[in-house]
Amino acid sequence: MDPVKIIEIKENVFADNDAQAERLRKELKSQKTFLLNLMSSPGSGKTTTLLKTVESLKERLRIGVMEADIDSAVDAETMARTGVRTIQLHTGGMCHLDAGMTKQGLQELSIEDLDLAILENVGNLVCPAEFDTGAVKNVMILSVPEGHDKPLKYPLIFTVCDALIINKIDVLPYFDFDMEKVKEYALMRNPKLKIFPISAKTGEGVEAWTEWLHQTVTEWIE
Amino acid sequence: MDPVKIIEIKENVFADNDAQAERLRKELKSQKTFLLNLMSSPGSGKTTTLLKTVESLKERLRIGVMEADIDSAVDAETMARTGVRTIQLHTGGMCHLDAGMTKQGLQELSIEDLDLAILENVGNLVCPAEFDTGAVKNVMILSVPEGHDKPLKYPLIFTVCDALIINKIDVLPYFDFDMEKVKEYALMRNPKLKIFPISAKTGEGVEAWTEWLHQTVTEWIE
Repeated sequence: MDPVKIIEIKENVFADNDAQAERLRKELKSQKTFLLNLMSSPGSGKTTTLLKTVESLKERLRIGVMEADIDSAVDAETMARTGVRTIQLHTGGMCHLDAGMTKQGLQELSIEDLDLAILENVGNLVCPAEFDTGAVKNVMILSVPEGHDKPLKYPLIFTVCDALIINKIDVLPYFDFDMEKVKEYALMRNPKLKIFPISAKTGEGVEAWTEWLHQTVTEWIE
Repeated sequence: MDPVKIIEIKENVFADNDAQAERLRKELKSQKTFLLNLMSSPGSGKTTTLLKTVESLKERLRIGVMEADIDSAVDAETMARTGVRTIQLHTGGMCHLDAGMTKQGLQELSIEDLDLAILENVGNLVCPAEFDTGAVKNVMILSVPEGHDKPLKYPLIFTVCDALIINKIDVLPYFDFDMEKVKEYALMRNPKLKIFPISAKTGEGVEAWTEWLHQTVTEWIE
């Protein structure tokens, strides 16, 4: 095993992916479709947050959802019940999606008549942050039970995201979670980060997030 | 980019890692040191569980801890306060540890006088499961807020683990978490899996876990 060769290949993969992601974003712009890449740890509430988001925006935007999972179709089945077009992407063991895989998904989803395509990435705070999917905006969810120290431990994902949703604020009383500290740590990684504390379960705070998303999508597809 | 070449390299890396992991396990056996690889999502309570584990066993076993993180030394600083030998491994952006990285860590930790070396792997349910670190046993933590569907979505990690700790049972009343279902799904992936529901915060259930670990370590180092 020659480590130098492996590093070269990794760099080529990243460089190629960045170029492919840029091409995909240009295609999306000309097609007037916004692609949102949603990332988080397993179990932080991506699907529940998406359900609330779709319910709030589906009368105003034409939405499609791609649920990426290593296995199973649990999330896609749940999402399809909202009535929006949903497909399941199986990554075949891969821990992230790259621009090529995302483009393949978009073709399957068929985005010609969509304003907003949402990619629910694989639950992972590390690898998805390293691969530009071609999304217009990256958004991550951190949930209260995960702890306020995560921006210190997983810096890259906080750097590449445009918005941070802090989910499960309904259980704040039961966890040692410092909302001011998490905001301070996250903004230290990325001063431009928009932060939305929400409870996808109770609906608290969801409107501020969906209004930001609605405005951001509208500006892109104009 | 030639996908065939990338697949070949990946296979070589895995094959080489498996061989290196086997060699490391043999070295550990002859040195009478047990290596535990602890994996989980970010924020599932690995460090708190380890603190309780170390407190419970440090009078009976000579323990050392390796805290793997992409960045920061938050966990190592916390762990060092227990008085057990602790080192921080920075993975330099890598989402997992392989056998070579683990061996390097063990050399830094210096295991000649240790019965039990514990590796707290990077918080990630996907990539760490793919790389044999050379550990004698793999253990994972799933926490109640992450949801009972995780064995359906992240099958590999449940397959490669010997024990599953279900942490944060103190917050069971506040989450829609079905303990029977999670056990059923996990045992479907791995019928031999030992399952320990615990609250690292309150201490509930911790003894059953530490007694199992103590017995397993004792059998290895005899």
